[in-house]
Amino acid sequence: MAKCSLCGAPAVAEVRYARLRLCREHFLEFVERKVERAVREHHMIRRGEKVVAAISGGKDSATLAGVLARLRERLGFGLVLAHIDLGIGEYSVRSRRASERLADELGLPLLVLSVEELLGDGVPRLAMKARRPACSVCGIVKRYLLNALAIEARADRVATGHNADDIAAYALKAFLTQNLEDLRKQKPATPSIEGLAVSRVKPLYSVYEKESYLYALLRGLPFYHEECPHARLTSLDFHLKEMINKLESRHPGIKLQLVRGLARNADRYPGEDWEPVPCRHCGLISYGGECSFCRLTSRVKGEPLGGKVRGKIRSLIEGSHI
Amino acid sequence: MAKCSLCGAPAVAEVRYARLRLCREHFLEFVERKVERAVREHHMIRRGEKVVAAISGGKDSATLAGVLARLRERLGFGLVLAHIDLGIGEYSVRSRRASERLADELGLPLLVLSVEELLGDGVPRLAMKARRPACSVCGIVKRYLLNALAIEARADRVATGHNADDIAAYALKAFLTQNLEDLRKQKPATPSIEGLAVSRVKPLYSVYEKESYLYALLRGLPFYHEECPHARLTSLDFHLKEMINKLESRHPGIKLQLVRGLARNADRYPGEDWEPVPCRHCGLISYGGECSFCRLTSRVKGEPLGGKVRGKIRSLIEGSHI
Repeated sequence: MAKCSLCGAPAVAEVRYARLRLCREHFLEFVERKVERAVREHHMIRRGEKVVAAISGGKDSATLAGVLARLRERLGFGLVLAHIDLGIGEYSVRSRRASERLADELGLPLLVLSVEELLGDGVPRLAMKARRPACSVCGIVKRYLLNALAIEARADRVATGHNADDIAAYALKAFLTQNLEDLRKQKPATPSIEGLAVSRVKPLYSVYEKESYLYALLRGLPFYHEECPHARLTSLDFHLKEMINKLESRHPGIKLQLVRGLARNADRYPGEDWEPVPCRHCGLISYGGECSFCRLTSRVKGEPLGGKVRGKIRSLIEGSHI
Repeated sequence: MAKCSLCGAPAVAEVRYARLRLCREHFLEFVERKVERAVREHHMIRRGEKVVAAISGGKDSATLAGVLARLRERLGFGLVLAHIDLGIGEYSVRSRRASERLADELGLPLLVLSVEELLGDGVPRLAMKARRPACSVCGIVKRYLLNALAIEARADRVATGHNADDIAAYALKAFLTQNLEDLRKQKPATPSIEGLAVSRVKPLYSVYEKESYLYALLRGLPFYHEECPHARLTSLDFHLKEMINKLESRHPGIKLQLVRGLARNADRYPGEDWEPVPCRHCGLISYGGECSFCRLTSRVKGEPLGGKVRGKIRSLIEGSHI
């Protein structure tokens, strides 16, 4: 039986790019240190800040919340969890339940925003009415609600659970299609823009998908292991993930080299930095005067709903004492 | 039996990304048009210019010379072939012979530069003496000799046979390792620098390796089908070519999209443009005052040989009436 390279206990994981076999304890520590290094290196969180961790209910959210909960004392930040209930039938019910169990398990406050309650429709119906792909509408809604929540809660950061596989596949697609602007977006941390947008950080950007999965399992963190029924990976996305993992198995560490290089280089890729301006309806970030959430709700609901939604979120936060 | 999509004759090739099956005539025309488009789009060759096509004796050289020979009347340029005999035993003997047969077949003048005659040693011995990898020494020597030859022959362009597969694999490696400077080099045409360097162009940059191979075969052009014994593809290079081709088979056209995108974007990648200055020994291009050829020969031969080599090449050209 393979033994831990560090202590000789039975190994539960092989980390080929680091030439290590690790026991449960040392594997958990390995992941936590990797995240801590990422947080420090990219100044993702400073002492005294308030962090909202966006959790979907899946394995990456579980690992994100689990690791941040452990780092928060040493790094000295406050942590609350936020879950967006997208209103996608059974999938959303189970995702929400997993998020609630995760918050319980970690003893962290959780704020749930329900798209149906806030907008009268879940994501699938919004998408149908907008005649747009569900994933695109979902992206607009999630991004808006998380930012609005962080603004209203006076948080300093929104942390998301994007892992190294997500980032590598996205970047490789952007490279193959030579969409350089998308490569600029590969920053592990974006800055806050006073009153308009709260800084977004990706503490797991250098954690492999299978490391994230194993971490959540070994810590016994609750998560819901299903893909969203709407999330049909286009076959290119799927083939790219497969390809990178095959390359990784032959050249251990190449995925890490890519995501770390991207983090270092993101600002160097060419592209225009658009000037953000307040949305004329809701006051949050927009490029051109109308944010995509207000544009979407104008189209689907007959009026821009950003302002009203911000008000509802404010009441929710006040009621929750977060 | 599959038929040509254009004329109904028996097809010899399927070009999946263009959704075409083509007969011999239409395939040859397809490749020639692709090269012509590349030449025009990137201003690789202007009317009245003199082009030196660098030929190794392999399939890509054969296709390069074969297509340029056909384009030269319509586009109005002069064409000579140049072969560097690297002094790598039997491989070089056969490569040189293939180059001579190619020149004969196409009725084009050929100038052969022998590394052994010019420097007293072939590439393997130079590399051994310099204690550097053969491929790195070979690159320095070939680049220098071709540029010196073009300068002395008052040529306007040096054309090389790099195909789309070469370029895609090179670029993907640069991307995965986030070596952005290497991505800047992916230009299909570099400009001449008066007196220092002659413009380099890659007319086959959008031609797939298998298209280049089939073109040479179908035109009956002589070529030598062996890898250089020193050219051990590192396994990463090999896996990357394999990977791109697998991706291409599932997403026809993705390789083309990449190389065309790179050609468009090369200048947009970040990096410093070093100021070229004349080498203090030979007067040709250097970055910092001493060219890598003079540095190499100083080390291996006890003196910088750029100047002498230029003189010998000048005499050769005068003797050959090219």
